[in-house]
Amino acid sequence: MYWKPEIEILPQQQLHILQAQRLQETLSRAANSPFYGQQFKQHGISAEMIKNVDDIRRLPFTTKEDLRSHFPYGFLTVPKQGAVRLHCSSGTTGNPTVIFHDNHDLSSWADLVARSLYCAGLRDTDVFQNICGYGLFTGGLGFQYGAERLGALVIPAAAGNTRRQIKLMQDFGTTAIHTIPSYLYRLYAAFQDMGLDPQHDTNLKLFVIGAEPHTDAQRRRIENLFGVKAFNSYGLSEMNGPGVAFECEYQNGLHVWEDAFLTEIIDPDTLEPVPDGEEGELVFTTLDRHAMPLLRYRTRDLTRFLPGDCPCGRTHRRLARISGRTDDMFIIKGCNVFPMQIEKVLMRFAEVGTDYIIALDTVDGNDEITVKIELQKSWFTGDLEALENLSRRIAHELRDEILVTPAIKLVEPGSLPKSEGKAIRVQDSRDPKEAL
Amino acid sequence: MYWKPEIEILPQQQLHILQAQRLQETLSRAANSPFYGQQFKQHGISAEMIKNVDDIRRLPFTTKEDLRSHFPYGFLTVPKQGAVRLHCSSGTTGNPTVIFHDNHDLSSWADLVARSLYCAGLRDTDVFQNICGYGLFTGGLGFQYGAERLGALVIPAAAGNTRRQIKLMQDFGTTAIHTIPSYLYRLYAAFQDMGLDPQHDTNLKLFVIGAEPHTDAQRRRIENLFGVKAFNSYGLSEMNGPGVAFECEYQNGLHVWEDAFLTEIIDPDTLEPVPDGEEGELVFTTLDRHAMPLLRYRTRDLTRFLPGDCPCGRTHRRLARISGRTDDMFIIKGCNVFPMQIEKVLMRFAEVGTDYIIALDTVDGNDEITVKIELQKSWFTGDLEALENLSRRIAHELRDEILVTPAIKLVEPGSLPKSEGKAIRVQDSRDPKEAL
Ligand SMILES: [Zn+2]
Ligand SMILES: [Zn+2]
Repeated sequence: MYWKPEIEILPQQQLHILQAQRLQETLSRAANSPFYGQQFKQHGISAEMIKNVDDIRRLPFTTKEDLRSHFPYGFLTVPKQGAVRLHCSSGTTGNPTVIFHDNHDLSSWADLVARSLYCAGLRDTDVFQNICGYGLFTGGLGFQYGAERLGALVIPAAAGNTRRQIKLMQDFGTTAIHTIPSYLYRLYAAFQDMGLDPQHDTNLKLFVIGAEPHTDAQRRRIENLFGVKAFNSYGLSEMNGPGVAFECEYQNGLHVWEDAFLTEIIDPDTLEPVPDGEEGELVFTTLDRHAMPLLRYRTRDLTRFLPGDCPCGRTHRRLARISGRTDDMFIIKGCNVFPMQIEKVLMRFAEVGTDYIIALDTVDGNDEITVKIELQKSWFTGDLEALENLSRRIAHELRDEILVTPAIKLVEPGSLPKSEGKAIRVQDSRDPKEAL
Repeated sequence: MYWKPEIEILPQQQLHILQAQRLQETLSRAANSPFYGQQFKQHGISAEMIKNVDDIRRLPFTTKEDLRSHFPYGFLTVPKQGAVRLHCSSGTTGNPTVIFHDNHDLSSWADLVARSLYCAGLRDTDVFQNICGYGLFTGGLGFQYGAERLGALVIPAAAGNTRRQIKLMQDFGTTAIHTIPSYLYRLYAAFQDMGLDPQHDTNLKLFVIGAEPHTDAQRRRIENLFGVKAFNSYGLSEMNGPGVAFECEYQNGLHVWEDAFLTEIIDPDTLEPVPDGEEGELVFTTLDRHAMPLLRYRTRDLTRFLPGDCPCGRTHRRLARISGRTDDMFIIKGCNVFPMQIEKVLMRFAEVGTDYIIALDTVDGNDEITVKIELQKSWFTGDLEALENLSRRIAHELRDEILVTPAIKLVEPGSLPKSEGKAIRVQDSRDPKEAL
């Protein structure tokens, strides 16, 4: 039933005791890093301050800017020779961020990914094809080590070359795939081009999708297309990468592994905890990382805790799907809009296909929002009146959600530009505003 | 001094006892695979036949064609669920080849790569940047797991993006790089473009190069360019990948890890062992692989054993650098030529730059060979007489080596087309011959 039952079904009360103990240990370690060492001294912080998990609130937050400005070694608790792996961001602007791991950390990470995959239904009898970038991107090595730890047969397929991916699935009877949701549409199109039906011509039974924001409706479409259950994976490179929170068979939110990540949800403006069940910014403290612990790290991801127990029996709390990022949000005509709000509305329409783009432009000095939407093949007819009617209905429902009426442009399936990696949903071509 | 002294300096006699014992075990395992199970029955082969290592000669050879025709599971000794990793070739023609690994195999492979890197001088205090493809290519994950096992800080840089590679080297003080030799020239050019001198602006002190045929002279040029020692790595995906044979600090041939790979050199025509020290085809038998042992696998690589003991004290025999592959050879005007023979001659000329191409064409029904050679910047002058003189001298020395006089075309540095991955040395555009 569970990968690590002694942890996964530990009652919350005992989990809190474990968390408090690990938090103490983490603080002791963190004190050895230049950044926290100085911060602790400055604020009079010590491991002894931690009597229970709520004492976490006595610590300051850590931000991406802290990571950047103390690049590369400011958060290391050991000499860099003590680490055996680093992952860093591409850092096109300013310093990149880097995370170092020692042997303990890599093993702990592999265990968390194994636990996550098991939770979604992967077993050691499965053939797991990992379709994502390797190297510095954490998805490749993260899932590789985790799925090997679980004992599945792992195909390190990496990204790209869709026909080859399909050949691998057929040659080795792949049963499970990890990839980003938008790639699954491309994969499906390739199956069709090859005259194949994934339901009959493959053994696929499990998808793990993540690393790209998407709605639950988007997931359901993927499931219906392939006849394969798709499970949501959540992680971020600052918290190792994959293996932070994962859906179980009930697909009712993502169990966050509270023995490894102390999880808070705060109001991003007041920095106070939000009332239970309300949405706010996710904040994590690592509880099992040695080389580079992070305390109260602000993820910028927005979500909430889901109420109630999960029928699977796991006691680790469930997070709602990420609804947006504080830095994804754009402002149009004075309204704050998250791209996921728009996707949620679009997915209500059966006529809408697999791709859309939100374009922001300045026209005659005014900001305008246009949503370009690919239709399903069967709905893209020459019936202009029907199309205009559909546009009006979409615009109306979007207005209800985002409080602005966008222009709607319905286009043929496949006609929107496709990106190589993650889908790009927002194109902001507005004139830069003058600073006031 | 050694990564695994109890194995690395084991006297040959005791090594033979270990080999015989592991060979017996390997045969017992191999009998569980469909391919060897049937072969053993047919030829009356059993583990009891093995009294000492020379009894290996009583076994038939295994070829790449055997792997292809029994794709994918014909060599597996366990159900495919017992494996946790596969690596397979791209297989543009016919079936690909695939190698499966269980947990034992991955751990044994990581140990062999760690031992190899240690042998070349890598230590747990080093920062190791792995510049090569990850995923199904064995160099990425092979060196990743091995260098982590050794305890170095590993940067999973993957291939491509040369400026970013340099930024990584500078950000994290990279001391060691693994890559293909031709990439190091591209790297050097990028350093120059950026106004940097690798000797002063980096901490580089160790290169590990392999996966692309090259001469010792080519290696010396790389060493002189960077002021960094470069060590030769040998491996092939059928024998895991990297970690089969490696140079030690004395750079006098590659110690082949005889506890893991029973090594023979045979005459590719008679299939008999060549006399000691003579060149022939390398043949390996895995001695420590569980999921998919291979017996007397014909590599098609040509080399010889080097005589004498190594001052490093390791008892594992040394192979000469691979001089060619039986399937690299081309025939021109009735002569058998290996590309490495040509490189060996070219590298004698200080005027010759970093790149060359061997072009084979049919002109008026006759086969012609042209060697296009980039010159060093300083030598590419307008002095036509000097260039013609150089051409004549190169043609003359090549004729002595390959018995055919090639046309020589000297070109400007950087003017030959560059490939993205491994350097392509031979362009055969000859008309297809009619079968006789
Ligand atoms: Zn659950
Ligand atoms: Zn030696």
